[in-house]
Amino acid sequence: MNTYDIIMKKRDGHVLDKDEIVYMVNGYTKGEIPDYQMSAFLMAVYFRGMNHEETTMLTMAMADSGDRLDLSGIDGIKVDKHSTGGVGDKTSLIVGPIIASLGVPVAKMSGRGLGHTGGTIDKLEGIPGFSTSISEEDFIRQVNETGLAIVGQTANLAPADKKIYALRDVTATVDNVSLIAASIMSKKLAAGADAIVLDVKVGSGAFMKTIEDARLLAKTMVAIGTLAGKETTAVITDMNEPLGNAVGNILEVQEAVECLQGKGETRLMEVSKVLAGYMLVSAKKADSFEDAMKLVEDSISSGAAYNKMIDFVAAQHGNTAYLRNMDTFEKAKFTRVVTGRDLFAASEESSSFDKAYLTACNNQEIGMTSLVLGGGRETKESEIDLTVGIHLCKHLGDFVLADEEVAVLYGNDENKLEVAFNRFVKAYTLSQTNTFTNKIVYEVITKKDIG
Amino acid sequence: MNTYDIIMKKRDGHVLDKDEIVYMVNGYTKGEIPDYQMSAFLMAVYFRGMNHEETTMLTMAMADSGDRLDLSGIDGIKVDKHSTGGVGDKTSLIVGPIIASLGVPVAKMSGRGLGHTGGTIDKLEGIPGFSTSISEEDFIRQVNETGLAIVGQTANLAPADKKIYALRDVTATVDNVSLIAASIMSKKLAAGADAIVLDVKVGSGAFMKTIEDARLLAKTMVAIGTLAGKETTAVITDMNEPLGNAVGNILEVQEAVECLQGKGETRLMEVSKVLAGYMLVSAKKADSFEDAMKLVEDSISSGAAYNKMIDFVAAQHGNTAYLRNMDTFEKAKFTRVVTGRDLFAASEESSSFDKAYLTACNNQEIGMTSLVLGGGRETKESEIDLTVGIHLCKHLGDFVLADEEVAVLYGNDENKLEVAFNRFVKAYTLSQTNTFTNKIVYEVITKKDIG
Repeated sequence: MNTYDIIMKKRDGHVLDKDEIVYMVNGYTKGEIPDYQMSAFLMAVYFRGMNHEETTMLTMAMADSGDRLDLSGIDGIKVDKHSTGGVGDKTSLIVGPIIASLGVPVAKMSGRGLGHTGGTIDKLEGIPGFSTSISEEDFIRQVNETGLAIVGQTANLAPADKKIYALRDVTATVDNVSLIAASIMSKKLAAGADAIVLDVKVGSGAFMKTIEDARLLAKTMVAIGTLAGKETTAVITDMNEPLGNAVGNILEVQEAVECLQGKGETRLMEVSKVLAGYMLVSAKKADSFEDAMKLVEDSISSGAAYNKMIDFVAAQHGNTAYLRNMDTFEKAKFTRVVTGRDLFAASEESSSFDKAYLTACNNQEIGMTSLVLGGGRETKESEIDLTVGIHLCKHLGDFVLADEEVAVLYGNDENKLEVAFNRFVKAYTLSQTNTFTNKIVYEVITKKDIG
Repeated sequence: MNTYDIIMKKRDGHVLDKDEIVYMVNGYTKGEIPDYQMSAFLMAVYFRGMNHEETTMLTMAMADSGDRLDLSGIDGIKVDKHSTGGVGDKTSLIVGPIIASLGVPVAKMSGRGLGHTGGTIDKLEGIPGFSTSISEEDFIRQVNETGLAIVGQTANLAPADKKIYALRDVTATVDNVSLIAASIMSKKLAAGADAIVLDVKVGSGAFMKTIEDARLLAKTMVAIGTLAGKETTAVITDMNEPLGNAVGNILEVQEAVECLQGKGETRLMEVSKVLAGYMLVSAKKADSFEDAMKLVEDSISSGAAYNKMIDFVAAQHGNTAYLRNMDTFEKAKFTRVVTGRDLFAASEESSSFDKAYLTACNNQEIGMTSLVLGGGRETKESEIDLTVGIHLCKHLGDFVLADEEVAVLYGNDENKLEVAFNRFVKAYTLSQTNTFTNKIVYEVITKKDIG
């Protein structure tokens, strides 16, 4: 077996066997296969694709390239949840306490990542005192005692993915469904859960822009999970506008707490409940999705989910007083209100409007507003400003008058606020008739859908 | 402009512009673009291809990456000839003296290369005293005085090609017509001739196995040459069996001299004459191909071509006594005769034959016989044994009796001779009826064929 022949085999459209895939992944991770052969191989995969079996073997080889988290010390069925990422996505902070309050152990190891805002770990660090670095032993103990722990990645999970992703990122080989799916699922498999619920985002603020692409990714990941022996469910949800009202780290923690208090924005609540529902079904805590949804409703209305959040934050040394009185959270120094008039003035076509419907937005641009304000990382070394972000007062489909507030931007630098404002106001499409069709959960993919 | 965007642009099937192609070639040659990005780019080119304009821009950028030979000190229209390579191809040694004897200056700078035998330079070194390393100044002077000089590559010609080829060779990105054409033509353009005649080989002993592939390569190279302002002609010729009777370095020099003496094997003579004919037309020494062919015939029958060979060898310090009495050439220590019986015994289907037609052969395998004997280079560092090789007594379409000699193998190592014999005898397809159709020159491609 040699690298050249494997590159050529894939280049010529043939199906690779397990030995060949393991040879590539291990050889590359160990540095025996040079970058230039791996990048040619990845480009061949980009063009030829991989079938579900090959993708699963790739995923397993990547998952096996480092440590696998051992969650056997935790009783019950451990269900992990993963989102492919979007703007204002704080569902982990909502779903975790809900299902933990219903007896499903949540042992979540999260990375920090790049993006419009920080990762879940960054957001939690917005709570004074909250510690995201605890030992694996304490992590397991906390899950057994509190039902929920979310910590930064300590173990050497899927180093092959890290190395391959870095290479894909500079060789234009990111956009391939098998490689995307293997990257996500290798980390999920290494993270040790028994079942996995995936939130596949679709729309202008997501990696997948069309429902077809999202469905293909969802099916591929469900196929991998299933072939790897993990019950896997994928929910395809909308990312054509930010999820909920808040974009930004502390702003999102606050919104998550409001959701657990039963005061959440409709679409955010719906996605969170649906994800929680499928996690409960996977964990065998409910016989049907309908039963699961009733349990979820109860956990919120009874305060159980909120209380679980408080317990969890306390267990990780967070000051829960902030959650109880959210006005005490640190705030950005400056705010800039965006009104309907500002949106109307942003383009020639709408300059004569005095009222309009918000019919679409470039959600990626709204995410960029948060990044410009300092809320996310452009490079691994960037420092995140946890206080900045956006509060949305209006959503797609809403009717906006000139004087109405559409959003409030939070920043600590007036120049950045100005730049962010100028990008934000151009992000919307306005119309005198409402052409927006409201949809938040598009499809659910389970193993029966992968054929 | 950045490398990532250019990789993605080609990956997505778009046409690159000149600046982008120059950026890639120069950046890579200078070491500013890493191997792993170039190999991803090359794989994208493999899948997406390049149009004639892109391929020409790539070729020009590669040709401009180092020195361009300045042949302006030589009077007349300089015509270069290039073969895509095959088994027993010694046409340069025949064509050069012919056209030089007819007043076309031949200034040829040759590499050594890898293959079944050495390159033209290696073959010429089989003539005692022959020097292939002379200064550029002496090279020009010799062409002006003698009309013909063939030397080893001294100038830094197309270093981008060298670097890119080495990368393609380990990343399964060799087999792409644009990249093959650009590699060949960049060196030809850098070598400074005014017009180019290409011998594109097709068949089991050539890189191009089908007439369609050969035609595509021929058209691509003619398009490049034409767009680069050089009159370019491509002749597609057969390589389904070795060209002529000899395979091996000294053996081929001897055969070339025999050809110039008018005693050449039919197919080899036909290819050589046709190539010489088109070179004469390109050099404006004949108004038509038919007129050119008459000049070629005359140059051989009058002894002018042979005498030019003698003058040329003498000018490069070769001992011409060897050419005048070819029995004096150094010989291999051992010979092994291959008879019809040996071929019949090599496969079960033919084991009962006592006579048969040679209807096909695996020419690549015959080439390997020469390589096994030590006549070629497996790696750049290999030493060539100039005396070894094969003399073919029979050709495809010939009828062979059991006792008749099919070939004689020449070697200096009895073990290698045994290995070579066992490969050689299996290389032929035998039949009781002759299914071989004899064809040597398939097509001629000129600029009017490229549309």
